[in-house]
Amino acid sequence: MRQRQIQTYEDGQFTEQSDEIALESALTIFVNGEEFATLLCTPSYLEELTYGFLASEGLIRVAGDVQSLNVVEEKGFAYVQLYNQRRLEEMPVSKRFIGSCCGKSRQFYFQNDVRTAKTVMSQTTITAIQCLNLMKALQESSTDFQQTGGLHNVALASGDKLILSRSDIGRHNGLDKIYGYCLKHQLSLKDKIIVFSGRLSSEVLLKVSKIGSGIVLSKSAPTTLAIDLADDLGITTAGFIRNSRFNVYTHPYRIVQ
Amino acid sequence: MRQRQIQTYEDGQFTEQSDEIALESALTIFVNGEEFATLLCTPSYLEELTYGFLASEGLIRVAGDVQSLNVVEEKGFAYVQLYNQRRLEEMPVSKRFIGSCCGKSRQFYFQNDVRTAKTVMSQTTITAIQCLNLMKALQESSTDFQQTGGLHNVALASGDKLILSRSDIGRHNGLDKIYGYCLKHQLSLKDKIIVFSGRLSSEVLLKVSKIGSGIVLSKSAPTTLAIDLADDLGITTAGFIRNSRFNVYTHPYRIVQ
Repeated sequence: MRQRQIQTYEDGQFTEQSDEIALESALTIFVNGEEFATLLCTPSYLEELTYGFLASEGLIRVAGDVQSLNVVEEKGFAYVQLYNQRRLEEMPVSKRFIGSCCGKSRQFYFQNDVRTAKTVMSQTTITAIQCLNLMKALQESSTDFQQTGGLHNVALASGDKLILSRSDIGRHNGLDKIYGYCLKHQLSLKDKIIVFSGRLSSEVLLKVSKIGSGIVLSKSAPTTLAIDLADDLGITTAGFIRNSRFNVYTHPYRIVQ
Repeated sequence: MRQRQIQTYEDGQFTEQSDEIALESALTIFVNGEEFATLLCTPSYLEELTYGFLASEGLIRVAGDVQSLNVVEEKGFAYVQLYNQRRLEEMPVSKRFIGSCCGKSRQFYFQNDVRTAKTVMSQTTITAIQCLNLMKALQESSTDFQQTGGLHNVALASGDKLILSRSDIGRHNGLDKIYGYCLKHQLSLKDKIIVFSGRLSSEVLLKVSKIGSGIVLSKSAPTTLAIDLADDLGITTAGFIRNSRFNVYTHPYRIVQ
């Protein structure tokens, strides 16, 4: 956060006061010496963000695919050397691909999604009360959000409690920070739950499926494409979790009374 | 919107009911026969979205740079032929670029931003009451949001009223739809105001500057980088516009009592 003097208008009057603003900065990731992507993000956990982003994009599967990773935070650069020495143009990244696999009319948008998104077989269940409690814990966990109002929050949870929570100005970065942490620490995600403050878009669902979690809880709404993917990938989605109510959109059998 | 049967949990009980879900679909844009980008968006105003996106990315400056534009909505494809016949790899798109221009240490993230983002010289002013009224009008304009909760709203306004409003599941797409409309109809934006439901990130500020508007009003929070850009580009930013109060972060002289 950074302090800033701002003008506040209230009850017909302007007054000057100090405010806390959410940090945003750029992280450019170089892979095998080539520029790969620039993320605009909250500058925290940049190493985990890089691991998670590379895995989401299909460049790595496990942390051991990375030979070296150096983040130069002041400059906003992350230098990654993979054991796979191929050039980026030879890697299957970010090309739209529409096909059907497994005999179903599954549509994915990028070739790498076909290799990395997978049907979730998790048998984990949680209770309705746990859903409500986890969302409440997520909201209480983020003091930065409470001060700046400018962050998305995401957490990894068991049924009972949050295990790890991350904030970012970007919806996807928070998920990638969680994903990167799990890759680095070889945490299994099959029995874990993702708790998310943002809306459930197709991109969020694809990331949840890559992470391997079977349940995603959101404070907000899903889109049609997110629901179609969740249907197809076997992921339980719940949304609008607020106070004592919520909606379950897909695979409701994992949420029990 | 699409109807879906969902499970709702409330007061300790699950009931099945019908819900409205926000549409999301993919639009892949081909430029001069090459695949350029895939946007995940709300499938409305796709031609305007394409114009706005191409201008934001620096591929076109005016609608007249486009020789032909065909949207095939069922397939999610937009085919664009530019008068400029160069291949995409020869065009300056999406390369991060850090430099200083105009003797200031202005930092931009992509080369095309240097060419298209510009200091806003607008002399337009509005009153504090107009700020509050425009945000109220934006929220009342979106019936889809009220039904689905899953959309960002953005409008172009004069001081007195909304001229045009667009919704999208993606923060940037709504702005690009507005931008595309203005390009197609050769609307000058210097005296116009952007009213936005989402947070003000650096990417939003860069788009506002490309569009050429001097005032952006938001229901939510800005980031540090957005404020730095607004300072530098001469854009007035107001945020947290709710009920009878709001904050002004940069260039407050355009908002008068």
